[in-house]
Amino acid sequence: MADLSEKPIGVFDSGIGGLTVMRALMEHLPGENFVYLGDTARLPYGTKSADTVTRYAVQCANAVGAHDIKLLVVACNTASAVAIGALNKTLGDTPVLGVIEPGADAAIAAAPKGKIAVIATESTVAGGAYMRAIAERNPSASIVQKPCPLFVALAEEGLTDGDIPERVARHYLEPLLAMPSTPECLVLGCTHYPALANMIARVVGPEMKLVDSAETTARAAKQLLSDRKLQRQSEPLPPRFLATDAPDRFARVGEIFLGRKIDARDVELVDL
Amino acid sequence: MADLSEKPIGVFDSGIGGLTVMRALMEHLPGENFVYLGDTARLPYGTKSADTVTRYAVQCANAVGAHDIKLLVVACNTASAVAIGALNKTLGDTPVLGVIEPGADAAIAAAPKGKIAVIATESTVAGGAYMRAIAERNPSASIVQKPCPLFVALAEEGLTDGDIPERVARHYLEPLLAMPSTPECLVLGCTHYPALANMIARVVGPEMKLVDSAETTARAAKQLLSDRKLQRQSEPLPPRFLATDAPDRFARVGEIFLGRKIDARDVELVDL
Repeated sequence: MADLSEKPIGVFDSGIGGLTVMRALMEHLPGENFVYLGDTARLPYGTKSADTVTRYAVQCANAVGAHDIKLLVVACNTASAVAIGALNKTLGDTPVLGVIEPGADAAIAAAPKGKIAVIATESTVAGGAYMRAIAERNPSASIVQKPCPLFVALAEEGLTDGDIPERVARHYLEPLLAMPSTPECLVLGCTHYPALANMIARVVGPEMKLVDSAETTARAAKQLLSDRKLQRQSEPLPPRFLATDAPDRFARVGEIFLGRKIDARDVELVDL
Repeated sequence: MADLSEKPIGVFDSGIGGLTVMRALMEHLPGENFVYLGDTARLPYGTKSADTVTRYAVQCANAVGAHDIKLLVVACNTASAVAIGALNKTLGDTPVLGVIEPGADAAIAAAPKGKIAVIATESTVAGGAYMRAIAERNPSASIVQKPCPLFVALAEEGLTDGDIPERVARHYLEPLLAMPSTPECLVLGCTHYPALANMIARVVGPEMKLVDSAETTARAAKQLLSDRKLQRQSEPLPPRFLATDAPDRFARVGEIFLGRKIDARDVELVDL
């Protein structure tokens, strides 16, 4: 029987933002092999209906699953929020880990009084997955959600600081700051948002801690593999990258999110 | 033999912005029947590679072409800029009209000295189709292009005027205003941009005329049908709408662009 632990971990996202999750996974699990798929042709997911996001996520899971993986990490908040059930069904016995539950854990830890704000895409907010996951952990938590769709366009254009992004952030976040009881933490519920974290932190001030689910997701993945005795500890192969559009752009912009060099020749173009 | 002129005109766009072109077509051709497809599941096209845009545009053309049309109007600037050749091949004898050539005609008319600025998506700018179409008409024209990707996100969020869009517009357009010789006109080379036209006009000032290709495209369509004796003059059927995602949102937001009521029940969800 083949050694299950030798199999790679599959990761997918609507695009390149999920590479921040991949980066945390590679740091926490240095002996693992990875296959990452970015659905760059059809991004963004955050403005699409739940049905369409689910259909695309299932196609992504099948494409990554074809690489004989031991675990699928859904790095995309929107796909995690609306499609986890369908993905579990698609992958059968292979465990599926989204970013919402680990993000909720991190929010609970950062908000002793349970005052939590979540910023995310329109679809993630509309689905209410963070609300449910946080309420399950702390039924008396008071949670406020706010969709911030322009943050995605700003991050993709590299406009991560300065006058324009700061005004956009104030436009979205000042209602949270004006609340009678200021939230203790702000969950960055979209993989694009950590690119704007410094500027967002300045706008919300030091009282509101920023919560990024990449770290907690990586810790949850490590725990899951350890529980199932599936951890791999040897020298890994270089990660494999798949993209549905523009491998060159994936490599170029992806390096910023992954924090290490990506050779465009290592990015395979796939058609879903 | 069936009367060719009775057939509908097909129109497609990456989403709902193309309804501004549809609106102009319906005004100029009140006796025609229309089928409009918005590829709302896969928008935006403007950040995708030419190969992917071409593949998607061919799928759209086939879906609209299945309605036995007499003319295909490509309302999307990006698809017009990169895929017209492939679309002509796909549709065989059915004529295909994009928005670039009519837009170039309008720019030439608005710029007697040939000083023309074009704002568009990243893909349209990278493809250089407006540059070529304008240079063909006036080889001594001096043309400057500027991609304005955030305008799409602003228009989709309904942030069409006020402090934030104005600062974004200044960020993009001030380099054009600072040129030693100010352009005589500014081509709005993306169907989303007319939604921001009032604010853009204020930023660039009265010396720079705004050029929107919807009107000239409608006139070009009328001319083409007249030349081929394909015009229909009787009372039309209500237009048919097809969308690849979220018919409800299509109807709700589409009304603003089309300038008339759209019933969500008249929007058919199609899978490409």
